[in-house]
This record gives sequence, structure tokens and C-alpha cells, in this order.
Amino acid sequence: MPAQSIAYSTTDKIVVRGKDLVDELIGHVDFTSMICLHLRGEMPTPGQRAVVDSVLVALMEHGLTPSSLTARLIYSSAPEAVQGAVAAGLLGAGGHFLGSTENAGRLLREGAVALDQGTAVEDFATAAVARHLAARLPFPGFGHHIHRPDDPRAPRLLTVARENGVAAVHVEVLEAIGVAMDKAKGRHVTVNATGAVAAVLLDAGFPWNSLRGFSLIARAAGLVGHVLEEAERPVDRAIWDAAEERIPYDGPRTAG
Amino acid sequence: MPAQSIAYSTTDKIVVRGKDLVDELIGHVDFTSMICLHLRGEMPTPGQRAVVDSVLVALMEHGLTPSSLTARLIYSSAPEAVQGAVAAGLLGAGGHFLGSTENAGRLLREGAVALDQGTAVEDFATAAVARHLAARLPFPGFGHHIHRPDDPRAPRLLTVARENGVAAVHVEVLEAIGVAMDKAKGRHVTVNATGAVAAVLLDAGFPWNSLRGFSLIARAAGLVGHVLEEAERPVDRAIWDAAEERIPYDGPRTAG
Amino acid sequence: MPAQSIAYSTTDKIVVRGKDLVDELIGHVDFTSMICLHLRGEMPTPGQRAVVDSVLVALMEHGLTPSSLTARLIYSSAPEAVQGAVAAGLLGAGGHFLGSTENAGRLLREGAVALDQGTAVEDFATAAVARHLAARLPFPGFGHHIHRPDDPRAPRLLTVARENGVAAVHVEVLEAIGVAMDKAKGRHVTVNATGAVAAVLLDAGFPWNSLRGFSLIARAAGLVGHVLEEAERPVDRAIWDAAEERIPYDGPRTAG
Amino acid sequence: MPAQSIAYSTTDKIVVRGKDLVDELIGHVDFTSMICLHLRGEMPTPGQRAVVDSVLVALMEHGLTPSSLTARLIYSSAPEAVQGAVAAGLLGAGGHFLGSTENAGRLLREGAVALDQGTAVEDFATAAVARHLAARLPFPGFGHHIHRPDDPRAPRLLTVARENGVAAVHVEVLEAIGVAMDKAKGRHVTVNATGAVAAVLLDAGFPWNSLRGFSLIARAAGLVGHVLEEAERPVDRAIWDAAEERIPYDGPRTAG
Repeated sequence: MPAQSIAYSTTDKIVVRGKDLVDELIGHVDFTSMICLHLRGEMPTPGQRAVVDSVLVALMEHGLTPSSLTARLIYSSAPEAVQGAVAAGLLGAGGHFLGSTENAGRLLREGAVALDQGTAVEDFATAAVARHLAARLPFPGFGHHIHRPDDPRAPRLLTVARENGVAAVHVEVLEAIGVAMDKAKGRHVTVNATGAVAAVLLDAGFPWNSLRGFSLIARAAGLVGHVLEEAERPVDRAIWDAAEERIPYDGPRTAG
Repeated sequence: MPAQSIAYSTTDKIVVRGKDLVDELIGHVDFTSMICLHLRGEMPTPGQRAVVDSVLVALMEHGLTPSSLTARLIYSSAPEAVQGAVAAGLLGAGGHFLGSTENAGRLLREGAVALDQGTAVEDFATAAVARHLAARLPFPGFGHHIHRPDDPRAPRLLTVARENGVAAVHVEVLEAIGVAMDKAKGRHVTVNATGAVAAVLLDAGFPWNSLRGFSLIARAAGLVGHVLEEAERPVDRAIWDAAEERIPYDGPRTAG
Repeated sequence: MPAQSIAYSTTDKIVVRGKDLVDELIGHVDFTSMICLHLRGEMPTPGQRAVVDSVLVALMEHGLTPSSLTARLIYSSAPEAVQGAVAAGLLGAGGHFLGSTENAGRLLREGAVALDQGTAVEDFATAAVARHLAARLPFPGFGHHIHRPDDPRAPRLLTVARENGVAAVHVEVLEAIGVAMDKAKGRHVTVNATGAVAAVLLDAGFPWNSLRGFSLIARAAGLVGHVLEEAERPVDRAIWDAAEERIPYDGPRTAG
Repeated sequence: MPAQSIAYSTTDKIVVRGKDLVDELIGHVDFTSMICLHLRGEMPTPGQRAVVDSVLVALMEHGLTPSSLTARLIYSSAPEAVQGAVAAGLLGAGGHFLGSTENAGRLLREGAVALDQGTAVEDFATAAVARHLAARLPFPGFGHHIHRPDDPRAPRLLTVARENGVAAVHVEVLEAIGVAMDKAKGRHVTVNATGAVAAVLLDAGFPWNSLRGFSLIARAAGLVGHVLEEAERPVDRAIWDAAEERIPYDGPRTAG
């Protein structure tokens, strides 16, 4: 039987996840707690809330990226539809950037299960690294094309999780993989933000398939900011001109 | 000269709105404060933050609506691309639902300017109501197709704004319009959530053209929740079947 | 009673607009005729089909534009979801570019009605131009930021419509407005592609609110081409780098 | 060096794939030929054009599906942005429906290569079927949830390809797989439209990664038709109501 357990409304009330929106939620809980309640049906502990806040703050903004450039181009082309600009930008939150979070999440879950079955964390980490290097697979959650030697967001997120008593087995597995990775490579490879995000959200009790959702929520906010600035100080023409200059036509030409 | 003032990053740091993401934001501020910082370049007061929290909590979820039905249909059609499902749902956050917020915002701004120039609030309200009724225009921020006699979210949002010392001229104008409206109509017409959202966000210092953005941020979170439930308990087939039964084909038929 | 008249299917057939898809359409009609059938319920005349072909060919491609840049940025960010890249690009087909087609369509319809009621075409044209100039409104269907003195697509579209016996009152009104415009401005202003598209599609019997749809269909095809090239020879990084260089950060900096 | 070979424009001309848009394309070629030119840089033969027409006609419309329901829901929520409704509908053209085309395309390519290397077509087909059945994998291009025993579009598409001299090795492989499948299953399994589309487009010379693009182009046209009907006879409320009735809330309730 099809059914849903998120919300219902009547003429005089709205109920979300079993709580009265007006009497129990608006003015009673913050947005981050409401997100936690919506996504998994229960309120967060103070520590979990702090971790989710840190993740959403970390993921909101990274300057001019494909997503924010897209939101600005689309806003200036169709200013009557702000929702189109934000939606277009979110469509860039795909496999290339966010698949990595989910893959990291799956690997950390695998490690947590292995530890639970008695495997030592160093053994799991060493084997996982060896397996990926042998298959020449990119290692989810490690490396960054700008931030070197370290993605500064990653240690900060792990610290927040630790200080709030949330860091547990998934953070432990992530850090063990980091040690094993540096040893196998003979040089330091940074844990990146998506690796740290995966570890702290799993330790905060969220399932691995919800990880991409946090990026979408945080980025939606960042894209709204870009659209508001684009409305005041448009750069669409600059993007367009720069692209035309940088990317010449090299196909066949006409006789004329 | 084209430029942007939102964020930049170097190999070892990310700066958003002039603040170091790692040293000043992650683990130091909550998501709602970060949204305020991003959208207008400065941190909120505690009262402003409480108002923004109440707005985002109020707008996140309203059950099975065109937006959430869309997100579920698209997720089940293209489960490899969660971002597509959330983006598709956000595309429903358009003129029909959210235009109303912006129109309400513009009217409240107009009232605030009039009061500033010496007009009595009752006079502005009476004239505004008369003008809309004469032109048979829908009155932005008033009326709701489900919630009668009152949209329960509206008074709650106004109370939160008042208790946090944020309610000011825009709330005053909204309430005066409510009184004038009931008098002109000879019956009670509810202030709806979008009317109250417009008033409290304007009083919290946000510009009218940012109002739609708050709905998009809040709805992005709600849609992620619907997608996660759709992954566990799909209802796409139920929507599809119900639509096919309810909406028969009444065009020409073939001879065969 | 809700109903639809587009299509239905049974276990052994699919019927679109009253025609059996397999026995009457696949292999029997070309794509352009099928589009006409779908959009207004009847097959085009050969002349109408030629005009629709010319419009779709004219609108498909215009090099690196906000739409095609967007499709390429999104494809490279989320290559698992080609549909997301095409959808994102289409979101740029909004008011700024296509609103113009609909506004031109409305004006031409207004002219056709006036002629039908006995107004001379020159009088309508002169008055329409005077009205827009007085209000300092942009004139829909005229002017182009690249193509000067003439958008070469416009006269070609009008010629195709004339040669195929489709050109009628809407083309007549458009050309009279062109004459009146040049006279009022004291210099030549080009009829642009969207003006010509509006005139010939209206003369081919399509309603003004369908005009934007033709751009969406044609652009969908063009965007698929850009995505396929992006898959072979990605330029997303070049767009990103060029934008970062051209659009510096000019906001506050941190002390560090 | 980043570059593109699709199109460029100057003040007085637009060149697409080396051809002058005005002098060689508008009014000279039909939309389907233009699509072929855009997607692979050369004009189709008459037979190839006929096959592409048949594919685009076959894929345009299938009644009320997740895509068309979505386009209608979004249009009625945001009627100011037709592009948003079409984009949202296209986002449903994902892995669940179209992944199948690409998977079928890959398998048929594999078969073509095997035949080229001397494998008998029956041997390839028998082995491919055995492999999928052993792995309990769905067989791409076969089976349909509505059309039984046969998807009527599939044989028609193959006939068109044969009559136009386009059918070649990929159609041969598809048909051999059909025979092997029926034998292995002990019952008839239909070749579906996506299987036939993959075979005839590959035989027409298109690469397997372009297959999804044809669905997007055809569906864009179909979705425009649904949006136009939705503007005249809205069914969004019927979809919404039907979904609410069919999908009850079964989560926790409040005490009140």
C-alpha cells in the first residue's frame, strides 16, 4: 500500500513528522534541527546538531564554480524565474563532485562493518588502500585539485565532531585510511571536505544515501546568494565574453 | 568592471564574505547565521536569527504538493541523479506560489515608505485594500485554499518576530491591512504564511527580492526528505496510476 | 471534468492525436509534421511544414551562449545525467531571450486584429512605433546586439514563408512596423530572428503562446550537440578558469 | 587547447558545422537533417534521415507518464516559466527509462565487434543471453510493462530501417538476441522500443552515447504539447487530489 510519513495538513493544522508545525516547531526549533527531524524522523542531539551545522556551513560556498557560474548565467537569461537559476546550479551537484561523498560514505560503512566483525582498523585501511591502488581507482574522500597539502575544511570538521562527542567509528576508519594512504603513496594526500563530511554525518547517524542531500541543501543557499549578487552586479556578459575568447571555433569554415 | 564579493579561495584557505571559513565559520556559526551572512554580507542579531529560523522552519514542508510529487516522480525515473529530482521540484516554486511573497513584500515596502512620509497606517491600509478590490486583483499575502479561517503559521510567525524584538513597520502595515481587509469584505480573511513571511523578513532587514530565496532554501531541504522516503517506499507508480484513472483521454479515437 | 486529448495506449497500440502511432505515424510522417500534429492536433500543409522546418533550423544553434555554456558546465559536473545538462541549458531560454518572441507575437496579433477591423497597416505600424518610443519600451522583434545592420536570419525566414505561400497578415504587419520604425528612428533597425519567427509561425496558424515552445524544441537539439562535443573535448575547465580571471573578488579580505 | 567546432557567428553571418545558416540551411534542409548535421557534423543520407524521423516520431509521446505529469504540475505552479516545465519533465528522462537505450546500445556494439572478429551471430546472442540470465540482470532492450506480447513500435522501426536500406549488423544482432532469448526463456519476450531505437540509430551511424539525446529531443517536443494543453485545460489539481487520496499519511500523529 502506498503511503508517506512526512506530513499532512488539515484546515487548522500542519503536522510534520508527528509534530505540530505551529505549536512545536516554528519558533521552537532552529532550521538545522528541523532538517534533521525531516530527514530521519527524530530531533538531533545537541552534538549532532553542531556537526550538521558545521557540515552545512562548510558546503555552502566555494566561490565561482560550475554551479555558481551556471546560476548566474541562467538568472541573467531568465530573471523572471529565480527558481530556474537555483535549479540549474543544483544540477551541477552531480557525480563528479558529489558522487565522491557517497563513495566515501560506502567505504566508511564497509570499514565500520569490518571493525564490528573484529577486523583491526589498520588492517582494513591498508587493504582498502592496496585494493584501490591496484585497480588504479580514485580514492573517494582524498585529494583536492586546489587545496594542498591539506583541504583546510577536513581537519576542522573532524575537530568539531570530536569536540561534540560525535566522532566515532567512521572518523576512526577515515583517519586510519589517511595514515595507510600516506604510507602507500610515500607522500601526504589530503583528506578532502567530502571525505570528512561523509565520516562525521555517518557518525551523527545519517544513512550514506542522504549525504548528497546535505550538499544540495547547503548549495541551494549559496546559489541564492550568487543570484542576489547577479541581480545587483551582473557578470553574465563577462563569463560569456571570456568563454568566447578562450574557446575558439576550430571546425570547418565556409568559402565566403 | 565585473567582480564578485562573495568568496575566494587559495591553496590553504577559503574566505566567504570576508570571514575565514575554517577559523571563523565552521563550528563557530550555525547554518541559519551562515545563510544570513551569505545573503547580505553580515551576521544576524540573535533576534534576526530567530526570525529567519522560524521562516525556514515554516516553509520547509507542506505534505504532498506539486513540488514534492514532482521530486518523487523524477527521482523514481532517474534515481542516479538525486540533484535532478530536487531541481525539478524547486522549479515548481514559481509565480503561482511564490510570486505572492514578492508581491506582498512590495506592498509592505510601499506601506513602510508611506508611513515614513507621514501617512497614517490605517489610511494606507484602507486605500490599498480599496485599490485592489476595485481592480479585482488578488490581494498578496491574504487568503488560503486549505487553511480557514486562519493559516495557523501566520500569527505564529508574527508572534516570534514580536517576542524577538524584530517586528516593526512591515508587521504593523500587514496587520493594518488585515483589519482594513476584514472591514471592506465584511468577513474575516486570513493573513497567509507568505504574507507573514514577507513582513517578518523585511523587518529583519532582508530586501524584498530575496524573499523567494528563503522558500527555495527551505523547500530544497523538504524535497531531500521526500526523495529519501521515495527511495525507501516509492509512490511514483501510485501517482501515475491515479493520474491515468482520474484524467481520461477524450480526444479522437482511431477507427481500429 | 479533467481530461486530456493528446495520447493513450493499450497493450497493443499507442494513439497520438487520434492517429495510430505505428500504422499511421512511424515511417509515414517526418518529425516536423509530427511536432505540428502534436502541438495543434492536425497535420501541417506542405507550406506550413516548410516554414516550421525553417524556424526550427534557424533557432537550433547560435554558438557559445549562456545556454550552451551552461549545458557544458553541468555535463562535465554530472556526466551521469545528460538530461540534467540539457534541462539546465533550457532553463536559460527565458524572458530575456524568448520573452521577446512572445511579446512580438502579441503585437503582431494585435495588428492582425486591427487590420481585420479596417485599420490601414501603415497606421497601425506608425501608432505602435510611436507608442513604444514614447514609453521608451524596447520594441519586441527588432534590434540585435551582434547582427548589424541586419540579422541575416530574419529576411531569409520571411522569404521562405513567402515562397511557400504561408506569408500573410502577420508578416505584412511586421514589415510595416519595420518601415515605420526606420522612419521614426531616422536609421535602419533590423528585424531580428525572433520577430520573424513570430510572424511566420502565426501565419502558419500557431497560437502566440506556442512560440516559446519552438525555441525549446530547437534548442534541446542544439544542446544535445554541445553535450556530445563536451564529452569528447571538454571546455568546462576553460570556462571556469576564464571566469575566475575575468571576475575578481572585490569584497572584504581577512586579516591573515 | 580548448576549442569547439559547432558554430560561430559574425555581424553578418552564422556558421553551423561549416555551413552558412542562412545560405545553406534555413529553407534548404529539414529539421531532422539539421539535427543529424549538428550531432555528427555531416548531413544524413535519405535513408538515414528516414530512420531518424521514425525514431523521433516513435519517442515523442506516450501519454501521461512521469515526465508529462511533471511538466504539467510545474507549468501550473510556475506558468511564467514554460522553460521550467519542459526542463523538469526532461529530468525524468533518466536511467530508469533511458539508461536502457544506452545499455542496449553497448551490447549491440559489443555484438557488432564480435561479428567483425568472426564470431557467428547466433553464438554471440546465445552467450549474451546466457550471461545475463546467469547474473539475473535485466536484459536491455527487451520486455515492456504495458505492451505485451509485443511493443508495436519495435517491429515497425526495424521495418523502416530495412525498407530504407539502413538496417545492418546492429539490427542483425538484436534479432538474433531475440531468437536466443525466446529459446532460453521458453516464451516470447518482446523487443521494446528502446532496443529497436538503439539498433537502428547505430546502423544509421550514430555513436552509442548519442542515443539518450534523441529521446531528449523528441520528448522536449512532446512536453511542449502537454504544457500547451495544460494552459488550456489544467489537470494539475486533479493529479494533486488523486495523489493525496491514493497516498495516505501513515506516520505518527500529534496528541491534539
